[in-house]
Amino acid sequence: MKNLLTMSALTVHEIYEILHDAQQFAEGMKWQPSAQQFVANLFFEPSTRTRFSFEAAERRLGFEVLNFDAASSSTQKGETLYDTVRTLESIGANVAVIRHEADDYFDELVGRVGIPIINAGSGSGHHPTQSLLDLLTIQQEFGTFEGLRVAISGDIRHSRVAHSNAEALSRLGAEVIYTAPIHWRDNSGDYVEMDEAVKSADVMMLLRIQHERHADGMNMTKEDYHNQYGLTVEREKLMKQRSIIMHPAPFNRNVEIADELVECERSRIFKQMTNGVYVRMAVIKRALQQTSGGMTNEAINQACHII
Amino acid sequence: MKNLLTMSALTVHEIYEILHDAQQFAEGMKWQPSAQQFVANLFFEPSTRTRFSFEAAERRLGFEVLNFDAASSSTQKGETLYDTVRTLESIGANVAVIRHEADDYFDELVGRVGIPIINAGSGSGHHPTQSLLDLLTIQQEFGTFEGLRVAISGDIRHSRVAHSNAEALSRLGAEVIYTAPIHWRDNSGDYVEMDEAVKSADVMMLLRIQHERHADGMNMTKEDYHNQYGLTVEREKLMKQRSIIMHPAPFNRNVEIADELVECERSRIFKQMTNGVYVRMAVIKRALQQTSGGMTNEAINQACHII
Amino acid sequence: MKNLLTMSALTVHEIYEILHDAQQFAEGMKWQPSAQQFVANLFFEPSTRTRFSFEAAERRLGFEVLNFDAASSSTQKGETLYDTVRTLESIGANVAVIRHEADDYFDELVGRVGIPIINAGSGSGHHPTQSLLDLLTIQQEFGTFEGLRVAISGDIRHSRVAHSNAEALSRLGAEVIYTAPIHWRDNSGDYVEMDEAVKSADVMMLLRIQHERHADGMNMTKEDYHNQYGLTVEREKLMKQRSIIMHPAPFNRNVEIADELVECERSRIFKQMTNGVYVRMAVIKRALQQTSGGMTNEAINQACHII
Repeated sequence: MKNLLTMSALTVHEIYEILHDAQQFAEGMKWQPSAQQFVANLFFEPSTRTRFSFEAAERRLGFEVLNFDAASSSTQKGETLYDTVRTLESIGANVAVIRHEADDYFDELVGRVGIPIINAGSGSGHHPTQSLLDLLTIQQEFGTFEGLRVAISGDIRHSRVAHSNAEALSRLGAEVIYTAPIHWRDNSGDYVEMDEAVKSADVMMLLRIQHERHADGMNMTKEDYHNQYGLTVEREKLMKQRSIIMHPAPFNRNVEIADELVECERSRIFKQMTNGVYVRMAVIKRALQQTSGGMTNEAINQACHII
Repeated sequence: MKNLLTMSALTVHEIYEILHDAQQFAEGMKWQPSAQQFVANLFFEPSTRTRFSFEAAERRLGFEVLNFDAASSSTQKGETLYDTVRTLESIGANVAVIRHEADDYFDELVGRVGIPIINAGSGSGHHPTQSLLDLLTIQQEFGTFEGLRVAISGDIRHSRVAHSNAEALSRLGAEVIYTAPIHWRDNSGDYVEMDEAVKSADVMMLLRIQHERHADGMNMTKEDYHNQYGLTVEREKLMKQRSIIMHPAPFNRNVEIADELVECERSRIFKQMTNGVYVRMAVIKRALQQTSGGMTNEAINQACHII
Repeated sequence: MKNLLTMSALTVHEIYEILHDAQQFAEGMKWQPSAQQFVANLFFEPSTRTRFSFEAAERRLGFEVLNFDAASSSTQKGETLYDTVRTLESIGANVAVIRHEADDYFDELVGRVGIPIINAGSGSGHHPTQSLLDLLTIQQEFGTFEGLRVAISGDIRHSRVAHSNAEALSRLGAEVIYTAPIHWRDNSGDYVEMDEAVKSADVMMLLRIQHERHADGMNMTKEDYHNQYGLTVEREKLMKQRSIIMHPAPFNRNVEIADELVECERSRIFKQMTNGVYVRMAVIKRALQQTSGGMTNEAINQACHII
């Protein structure tokens, strides 16, 4: 049993193992559990692409899928996340895929439940399967991470996902540079101007502008942002010959990226989504294959005073 | 790959082909795709019977079903319908079944996405699988459309579904007459009194009174409507011997139709629902069988400036 | 075709039959319908554990599952429950599992629809699969009901589930005693002090405190309730050697039961959840196996005046 909670908890070797399996799935590998197995998807926040991506991955692996809708659940009655997960475990779930608004929701689960937890996004904190699908997309393109220059553009300061992506890329041998409006910079690395990033990067990794969170922070119209920090039609012309465009989506057309570029030849945005399914297949396979070390229900039970 | 968007886009030959396949399914025909396939159901408006009918059809054909709940999706974040459908395509959907409040939502999809679109209802505009299940029910009853008189009763003026039904019936050789309160008439055909319609029709096709849209328009109680324009117990006694009653449902008991008549012998209301599953099986089979002419992702990609 | 609506409608023989099948499923028995079958889950009230428990049971039996979400359905348009169930029957549902806020919602369905109804909870009235999973858990523990003392603790007065549990236990040969704050007592049996109950019971069956319904009724903090009427760490020490703790969940930690006791060795709370799946498998199997006596659609149709 292996949880997948954060990128930083994975060794470089483990990252390559997951990418290898994901690529195998991309090339048609078949793998199914030997008997009927259940996955519970617990999404406490809305998400189109992550939930469907996981569900598609689960179905391709032949799993039964239980889709937990937080809005219609007993968590409204004040049940803890731990009790909800233990409930799903008790009724037969073999894996739990969880998206939750709390950054470290999994702290109350690790070591206390008997099934693996796969983190499908935690607050503004961690989103390891998103990072892994980004890595798979880059690996498919360039065959290696060594010597690549990856430019991350957007709200670096508030994006812990950008940070964990950057950390993983550095460990794998890539160079990461940043470009952002002054208010969204921090001291995590080298900042360059957008034009400079566009000219030198092998990968332009654009972040989503979270309008809902930045309404007041930015004194800027969407048009201004696009012109100063977005990937405009003009800037794309500055990109190196084989460099690619990435975005985790959903994207804001004509804000982070010009409408015309979303599906242009060097865009890998929809390819990333396809890769997301393969990465999630690999992560679910990994979660279930190594079950030694998993806690059993018996081990969880505490002793009462008198028995 | 064949979309199903509107009745008027189907030739008479195509209509008969769909009805033929639907009847084959009604009689037990088996057909399944050769490998695992996914259908995405995107319902942006509430619907019990249409969604479950599609889902039952999809499961009978052995498809994996992804149920997109508009309320918990990224469309809340302002994503376009096109981007949502392309996302579902990217994660592996082979068909998209869409119900949407905009009459012509599919205009932004046709020719731009790589999977067939099946229209499960668009605003007050088109609902082709509803029309097809009506046609199947009539064909099963009478063996032909030639020479049949079909009376449509209700809010003709605001019902484009009534219009597309009528248009299809006319093309197939049936005669269509209308009966409606004065405010709900238009110039689309011959209007007769309700009693006259009831006496002469082979098929009494009742429309649903949309209370929510007509609260102010009609200065009439439900009882008044029922007595003047509904199918009352008394009026049913005037119907011809082999004539049948149809209604797309959900119906308002004792408004459009007397409570006692909903499941009487000449009612085909629940039969229509059963037929809906067979028609949708036929339409999905059709969507997938002919894939030549489908766009590929590569074809969709536009060229960037420099590659 | 056999409905499951209330415990009181089951004979002792029928109860034992269901428990027998459930135990067989717990021990790995396989049973699947001979052809593809559909279950419709109609949940008009939120429920995590009951809905997922039914869904897990249905999937283990190989059923196709249609999950009806009341919030996004045509019942918003005023459709009756009867019409909704007949609709689902018409599109191919073979069983309907229903949770509804009305105590006797099934009265309008029984004898009028052609598929079996399984009651998944009706208002504050009946919840037979919950009772059956409680019985299975007790039977697994003690092998018999004869001579057991079962103490039910909590809001007896407003809990018709407690009453139907007690009635079934009595018929099976167990003795039932009650313990409750004075305002929650009624004349249904013997009331004892909590300490007395804890000392003498073989089964401590705790009820959930429904905060939302009792906000004003109880002039008592959660701490006060826990100390006076809850199963505290101290009280657990008074329990007999082999006695067990049960709770239907969701539970309020440190209200009905001390946090530390929820998963202690004598707690069967999560075991109950696991048993719920087996009981529901047995109940669904029972619903479908005996179909003689089921009404057919033809039988339901009333005669019109003239045919």
